[in-house]
Formats: sequence, structure tokens, C-alpha cells
Amino acid sequence: MQYYPAPEEVIEMDDLIAAVRTAFTDHGEERCVMPPKVYVDLPGGDFRTMPSYLPSLNVAGVKVVNVHPDNPTIGLPTVMSMTILLDPPTGKPIAVLNTSNLTALRTGASAAVATSVLAPKKKGIVGIIGSGRQAMAGLMALNHVFEPMEVRVWSRSMKHAERFASQFPNLPVQVVELKKAADADVLLTVTPSEAPLISDEWIAQGTHINAMGADARGKQELDPAILSRAEVFVDDLMQAVHSGEINVPISTGIYHPEQVAGTLGEVITGKISRSSPDAITVFDSTGIAITDLAVAHLALGKGTIIDLPFPDNDGIVV
Amino acid sequence: MQYYPAPEEVIEMDDLIAAVRTAFTDHGEERCVMPPKVYVDLPGGDFRTMPSYLPSLNVAGVKVVNVHPDNPTIGLPTVMSMTILLDPPTGKPIAVLNTSNLTALRTGASAAVATSVLAPKKKGIVGIIGSGRQAMAGLMALNHVFEPMEVRVWSRSMKHAERFASQFPNLPVQVVELKKAADADVLLTVTPSEAPLISDEWIAQGTHINAMGADARGKQELDPAILSRAEVFVDDLMQAVHSGEINVPISTGIYHPEQVAGTLGEVITGKISRSSPDAITVFDSTGIAITDLAVAHLALGKGTIIDLPFPDNDGIVV
Repeated sequence: MQYYPAPEEVIEMDDLIAAVRTAFTDHGEERCVMPPKVYVDLPGGDFRTMPSYLPSLNVAGVKVVNVHPDNPTIGLPTVMSMTILLDPPTGKPIAVLNTSNLTALRTGASAAVATSVLAPKKKGIVGIIGSGRQAMAGLMALNHVFEPMEVRVWSRSMKHAERFASQFPNLPVQVVELKKAADADVLLTVTPSEAPLISDEWIAQGTHINAMGADARGKQELDPAILSRAEVFVDDLMQAVHSGEINVPISTGIYHPEQVAGTLGEVITGKISRSSPDAITVFDSTGIAITDLAVAHLALGKGTIIDLPFPDNDGIVV
Repeated sequence: MQYYPAPEEVIEMDDLIAAVRTAFTDHGEERCVMPPKVYVDLPGGDFRTMPSYLPSLNVAGVKVVNVHPDNPTIGLPTVMSMTILLDPPTGKPIAVLNTSNLTALRTGASAAVATSVLAPKKKGIVGIIGSGRQAMAGLMALNHVFEPMEVRVWSRSMKHAERFASQFPNLPVQVVELKKAADADVLLTVTPSEAPLISDEWIAQGTHINAMGADARGKQELDPAILSRAEVFVDDLMQAVHSGEINVPISTGIYHPEQVAGTLGEVITGKISRSSPDAITVFDSTGIAITDLAVAHLALGKGTIIDLPFPDNDGIVV
């Protein structure tokens, strides 16, 4: 029986980070078509549909991804995803991909790209709040752009935090208290929390925070006072207002969209930057469709190729 | 070599019409989740993403479909489509289907459902404006709910109209002038026209018109005076205002959303009906996601089954 590698097994992390960076560059230069993601509520969760078009890669497509927090209790992942890629000049489907793992990897790569342009240092203490697939992908990616002198991880479940630490035998990972994990040069928050976990007084000046967890209305991980004190960079303003870290403080009137410093794409393209090394910076990540598209495009021809038995869709890659 | 039937080869038209009718019933009873379709412009065309959830069938999913009018010049269909189905309680992908032909068939079935509840007669003259795949599917489906004493077809291309007629050797199909084709008991318009083709004075009282062609901003097939004189039933009000037959007259102020009589779902569920046998009725069809979902669900297990080599997506049906 033939062994079929999954797309993520054949993509190098450096290429993945570069692809995500290219997508953010195109976003900063407004060279993409990307309507806001569409949410459909389901029993026990929801699914999101993320269509987009990236002229620079000559690729269009749609990622479909669910979030069902209770799935692990029945042995299924919380997040599963498939992506359809299209040839822009004809609209012809060119590939169907299982992007379940690529979704976590591109989220991690987004945090790495943000850290590379927003963190004032290139090495130091990394704090990680959460211990799931996205947290693992985040540390894997961060390690390519920031040298972790120490990695402090906290999770609601001590067992999960220890499993997380055991996945990185070559990194100095310690399981710590929440407050200690938040005391870091680069902080990564990746939980499905709906109430602030990180207190304002724990965060020192000069900290860069990648706030990855909030990606739906009602989710938040940071004390809103941190946002008011920080320079907040979003991946996409409409999505962040709707479902990012800023969504709850905006809906309660504590925070205003005008306070957002700009987008990560604008930072990468040099249009804006952090004001000083002392500033607290927050990258508010909701996950944008063109990063999925760029990563899926990278997988083209590298995953499992199956000939599908209908004429319009030959050469499908899974 | 094994022969793999496509989904549309193994679905009976009566089942397809019944599935579409069920979807409209659920729409009329507001038992579905269906955000408006999202359009992404591409060079030479566009693609639409149509997510939805139908609790009555316990299925959710997304149809992705392009429209590239110049594709036939390079040997590709104008419209190609793939659909991903999900299991609602877990969000797990359960199938990927080539829905290129099912898209045309469900459009035809929608016209048949509308005709069955809106046309005052059960037999008479059928007029067809257009001769593409959607026109063929429309006549195939209509023939299941309305007895065609005579079928009058018109197309911009005489050759295409004759090819159309030759596809229906058992029906009394004639290729005629535009004006004569419009003189019918049940009229089906299925062109990509961006200017009215059908004059108001050609339409007699009591005519039922299935206006299927307009499905994007700027498209229209009917003289707006017909809409003002008629009772207009839409598949979905938001979609119709954005991209249906009424979209251009609304944008120019000739027609107002308040003039719409209601939805097809409301007719099927008995909430509203045509006012009299003399009324002109128009079904303004943009194509709604839950009809695609119901039809794709019907194909589950009937098309080609391929084992895809990754654990999260076993049992995929193409």
C-alpha cells in the first residue's frame, strides 16, 4: 500500500512563514479580494467559509473550517478544514485539500510574521497561554523568527501543558503559573476563552502579544486595559471588529475601532510601525483567508494526488 | 477500468424536484441558516460561495461555483461547481461533490417547483428564452409538473436553439422568433442578459414567468414594466434585491423591494398565493444555497466513492 503524505508533511516551516508574509504584504498593498468570513451556526459549534483571490499567486479559493469545542470528547479534532482552489481566469477547480493541520500551521506562521516585525527584540522569554494544536504550531513557527531563551507555558489542564512541553525536547519549556507565563517578551495567547485571562498589571512595557484565540464574537483573552495601553495591529479591521480580541471591548464601548494602530500588512509594507521599543504591541489575529490561500497554494502538487473520475476536475490534489 | 457514474446520473428528476421543494418549504418556515452568497470577482468572471445549514436533513455545506461566460471558447463550461458537505453536530467533512451539472438541474427543479404552485394551468404553451445547460435542465424539470402542448424556444444563436430542440425528440419543440417564444403560458428565461429581452406588450395576463437568468448585479431579462404589472415572488429577498431580476430596476428606482409579493417558500407553505388566474406571476430566481444542499444530500452515497487517504475525511463521495 502506498504511503500518502499529507500536505503539511511536505511543506517547510520557513516556506510557510514566507507564504503567509507574502499574503500580508498583498493585504497591505490592497492587492487581493477578500470578503469577510461568513459564519454559520451549527449544533455544538459553527463553520466558517473564507473565499478569496490572490492575483500575485494567480490563485483563488475557499477554505471551509469548523470549530466544535466538544469534539475531542468523541475523539475528533475541534477544528477540521477543507479547501477548494480555483484557477482564476477560468474558475476551474484545480485542487481539494485537507487543510485541518495547515490551518493551525498558518495561524502559527501569522504569529511568527507579526513577531518578526513588531517585537523589539530578537530573543528573550516566550510565554504561551494554551496548549492545543494552535499553541504547538505557534511555538514551532515563533522559533524560526525569535530565539526563545525560556518558554513558559500555561494551560487550564496541567496534563495538557506537560504534554505540550514534552513535544519540544530541544527547547527550554517550563510549565508555569498563568501570571508567570504572561511575564514574557513575546506572549502568545491561543485559548477559546470568553473572559479575559491576562491581567493588565502582569504585562510589562515592551511586551509583544500575539492574541490568536479570539476568532468569533464573544471571545476574548486580554484585560481590555491592555488594549487601551497598547498599540493594536489587526490582521483585518472588519474581521477584528466582528470577531477578534477587540470585539467584546468594542461591543461594550470600552474600546473603539479608531484606536487600532493599523494592519499587520501595513507594518510589513513599511506604511506604519510600532512607536518605540517600550510600547506594548498586540497583534489581534482572526485568521485571514488569503493566508490560507497562500499556504494551500504552497501545498499544490506536494500532497497526495488523486485522479478524480470526472472531466472538469482532473488533477485534484488532496 | 471501472465506470464511475456522476451524481446527476443516479438521481431521478422527481426526487430532485421533491428535494428542492423541501428546501423551499424549510425556507418558508425559516428552518434554515443561509447567509447571502458571497461574490469574488476574478479575471473574466467571478465565483460565488454559498454556505448553509438545513436542520431537517441534518446536513450543512458550502457550494463553490464560478461563472466565466467566455469559457466555452476554450472548451470549458461557463459554470463549474464543487460542494463540500459537513456533519452538523461535529463539523466533520463528509463529502466532496462535483456539482457542476447538479447546479443546472437544481435551477431547473426550482423553476418546476415555482411553476407547480404559481402557474394557473397544468398544461399549455411553454416558452424558453435561452438554450444552454440551464435551459435544458429547466425544460426537463418543467415537463414533470406542466404538460407542454407546445414548446417555443428562442436563442441568440439559431444553431444553439436547434441543438436544444434536437435534445427533446419526444416533446413538441419549435425554434421561433423571440416575440413568439415570449407568448406562452409558462415562460422560462435563462440567459446572461444585461438588458431587457422581453417586452411588456408581449406578455399576456395569466402568464407565469420563471426569470432564472439574473443572478448577479447588473443582469436583467425582463422589461421592468412587466415586474410592475406582475406579482413577483423571489427565492430569497436579500439575494434578489442584490442580484436577481429586480436588482437593476431597484437600483434605478423603477421598482421597490416593498412591491415583492413574497417568497416561493411562503407560497409553498400556504402563507401567500397568487391573487387570481389572470395575474402575471414572476418567479425571480437567484439560486439559493439550501436547494444546492438538499440536492447534494440526495447524491450522498450515489455518486463515485473514493477513499481519501487522510483520517479526518474518510468516506468522501465525489
